[in-house]
Amino acid sequence: MKHSIGVYGLGVMGKNLSLNIASKGHTIAVFNRDHSKTHDAVIQSRKENITTLYGYDKVDSFVNSLELPRKIIVMVKAGAAVDAVIREIGEHINAGDIIVDGGNEWYENTERRQVNVHNTYGAYLLGMGVSGGSEGARNGPSLMPSGNEEAFREMEPILSSIAAKVDERSVCVSYIGSGGSGNYVKMVHNGIEYGVMQVIAEVYFIMKTIMKYSNEAIATFFERCNMCNYLFEITIDILRRTDGDSILDNILDSPKMNGTGTWTSKEGYEMCVPMPSIHSAVNARMISSKKHLRTMLSDINELSQTTSNTNNNITEDDLEKALITSVFLCYVQGFALLQKKNIEKQWGINHKTIADIWKGGCIIRNRAILDFFSNDVFDNTTDLEEELYMMKTMTSTWVTNGVQPLSKLVSTCSANFIAIPTISNSFQYILQFIQKDDPSNLIQAQRNYFGAHAFEKRVR
Amino acid sequence: MKHSIGVYGLGVMGKNLSLNIASKGHTIAVFNRDHSKTHDAVIQSRKENITTLYGYDKVDSFVNSLELPRKIIVMVKAGAAVDAVIREIGEHINAGDIIVDGGNEWYENTERRQVNVHNTYGAYLLGMGVSGGSEGARNGPSLMPSGNEEAFREMEPILSSIAAKVDERSVCVSYIGSGGSGNYVKMVHNGIEYGVMQVIAEVYFIMKTIMKYSNEAIATFFERCNMCNYLFEITIDILRRTDGDSILDNILDSPKMNGTGTWTSKEGYEMCVPMPSIHSAVNARMISSKKHLRTMLSDINELSQTTSNTNNNITEDDLEKALITSVFLCYVQGFALLQKKNIEKQWGINHKTIADIWKGGCIIRNRAILDFFSNDVFDNTTDLEEELYMMKTMTSTWVTNGVQPLSKLVSTCSANFIAIPTISNSFQYILQFIQKDDPSNLIQAQRNYFGAHAFEKRVR
Repeated sequence: MKHSIGVYGLGVMGKNLSLNIASKGHTIAVFNRDHSKTHDAVIQSRKENITTLYGYDKVDSFVNSLELPRKIIVMVKAGAAVDAVIREIGEHINAGDIIVDGGNEWYENTERRQVNVHNTYGAYLLGMGVSGGSEGARNGPSLMPSGNEEAFREMEPILSSIAAKVDERSVCVSYIGSGGSGNYVKMVHNGIEYGVMQVIAEVYFIMKTIMKYSNEAIATFFERCNMCNYLFEITIDILRRTDGDSILDNILDSPKMNGTGTWTSKEGYEMCVPMPSIHSAVNARMISSKKHLRTMLSDINELSQTTSNTNNNITEDDLEKALITSVFLCYVQGFALLQKKNIEKQWGINHKTIADIWKGGCIIRNRAILDFFSNDVFDNTTDLEEELYMMKTMTSTWVTNGVQPLSKLVSTCSANFIAIPTISNSFQYILQFIQKDDPSNLIQAQRNYFGAHAFEKRVR
Repeated sequence: MKHSIGVYGLGVMGKNLSLNIASKGHTIAVFNRDHSKTHDAVIQSRKENITTLYGYDKVDSFVNSLELPRKIIVMVKAGAAVDAVIREIGEHINAGDIIVDGGNEWYENTERRQVNVHNTYGAYLLGMGVSGGSEGARNGPSLMPSGNEEAFREMEPILSSIAAKVDERSVCVSYIGSGGSGNYVKMVHNGIEYGVMQVIAEVYFIMKTIMKYSNEAIATFFERCNMCNYLFEITIDILRRTDGDSILDNILDSPKMNGTGTWTSKEGYEMCVPMPSIHSAVNARMISSKKHLRTMLSDINELSQTTSNTNNNITEDDLEKALITSVFLCYVQGFALLQKKNIEKQWGINHKTIADIWKGGCIIRNRAILDFFSNDVFDNTTDLEEELYMMKTMTSTWVTNGVQPLSKLVSTCSANFIAIPTISNSFQYILQFIQKDDPSNLIQAQRNYFGAHAFEKRVR
């Protein structure tokens, strides 16, 4: 008997996704170049009393073990490795077979491969964003597949069975759109993730340095703010973990980063969409990683030793409102980018659908904020004019409730020399949008002065 | 008798550069696809008693009128038009001839063309950044040529005669390096320009809205700050211009933008160099351009009507220091990008040389700041380690003098709901670099939690 589906690549994500698929009763063939990982996956499945996972040591027997049309999920490092795998399995596939690339791939690579795979083999390639980390892959990820819609429909029963469920009716997978739109949506997801993580870190920093809260007191604060936000939940857990000493206090403040945050930022410029909350989070990651330099600069700079006498009148209520608004703006900026790109690329993305599938499984799941996007912003509308979108989001209480507290926070932190780049940029973003008159008349005058650019007169 | 040089393309920049060349006594052939512009240039030259400028209506006679090796400066719109012109003149050139592209071209396009031009025609292509606007092109631009060095040496006498002069010894043209480095340096120049223009606009806005200064009083303030900074000088002139009414007050606050600012920002992410001052200026330009949306949002937002009661204790001295530091950081971030790119691309850029040629002719000329870079930062050193570079710049009085005033300014503007994105980001940039401990331990803990990323322990 042939297997329902195959997974090529058994790193943490690939193995967990395979176990997830098998645990739902699908028969699955797995393959990995390093065969020891294949055997590990098989042993792990048997330990979990999963009986439908089969390991293969040869690509041809792996591919030939699958029922037609074949469905093969590739879980290898994005880039050249994907091309190599496609060539390798391409030798053994038939027209109509379906390859799903589950890596964090740049969307244009997926679109190039979709054409090649179809022209060369008559087969289909779907690009699929997978979010939820290793735990999500095992127990229910959020899945963002794109490409040929009929190929997606072939995959849908299996994908629906393994994806996260928000409630009885809502499963966290849907057809995103044509081309590489699934990869693009996942990229934007990761950009939002950068922003939200940085906002949380800044609130933690304010409570620790200015308000002198203990980790436990900070955890209690985040519990109070809870809005079914995964990143809040793990923050609470992290703040409370000890091994005698606090785990968090002993982690080096020099984080690593991968490419998807910088991709999102570059796309903000490419598409001319202002995204300062996300940009500042990506930049903060860069500066944080330079721990040695920061240490040297702090040693010779008196300011880092300054204990400010500025009155601290920040309340927990201020912090909560500023936190929620800053987090919300990361989603506003991410969806703004998606909207504009979708219009340019004609991918046919339904933004309401994306808000829905982000409600479970993924790292940026946040029920309250995403309910607002799926009900009040996008409603049944696939696309909105930019102005209508900005009106709906920027006049919501998500934003208006935060302006006064943000003013207080940024003002106090500035007086105390506490860096809060993303909260600060979220505040600046709001201020710039609600300014009827801004000083760019001077900028236009300067351009006109040296560039022979024409300028328009103000209508009073 | 053959002419010394030719210019293809007689838009504002091309015509002025041609008149500049001819006025230095070089015989020059000019060509434009629309012949009326060719005739205009000839008539203009005669009016100015310039006798060495000759117009041509046919490409072959234009090219054949030049002495060997031919030197042709192309001044057309960047992109496909340049490829078309190269194909057009390529039919008539010889091995060893030199084409100089003076447009704002993306450096990789130049590098692709350099290979093609050499392989196809045995000729050379130089990419040359030209700064100074139309007035600079006519009377002395800053020139940033790159590519084959021998080809540059052939061009050097003419380029040196037309470039801006800072003093007797210093002329604002030098060989930048191999490949498209000249285009890249010009791109970074433009990114810095975005930042400086936005900082000036924000200071103008603070003086106008919070301090209630008149345009004349603001002009007087910028005079006081003067540091041979071209953008300060034109700002003073703009603030004082009237046609009965103030010219500036009647210019629409909805500026246009071209691509080079966004290119610089994208490169910041590509190269992982934090550049928040420049990024925020580019984003501010995007938001400023949405005047209609800003007007709608301001109408329904009470805050834009708020008159704050916050005490304003900003002094002119605070403003000056915050202004100078914020402007300085635009250069710091731009040079940081150039350094890292130069190491990756092995262009052989000498950073001291660039600081020198930016001292005259170009839009970002600023004698005091660029003297600091050419004397104290780069000295005789072509490249510095990133840490040494950041130590030299961030511990200088250019930065340290500004920290307290920036704290006061950002704090006051935040309390008053006045948007100052670039000044604010300049302050955040400093704070992030002088923080020995930042909250990114939490970010690393979150990554570890969902991503199975390892983390390092803090060394106490």
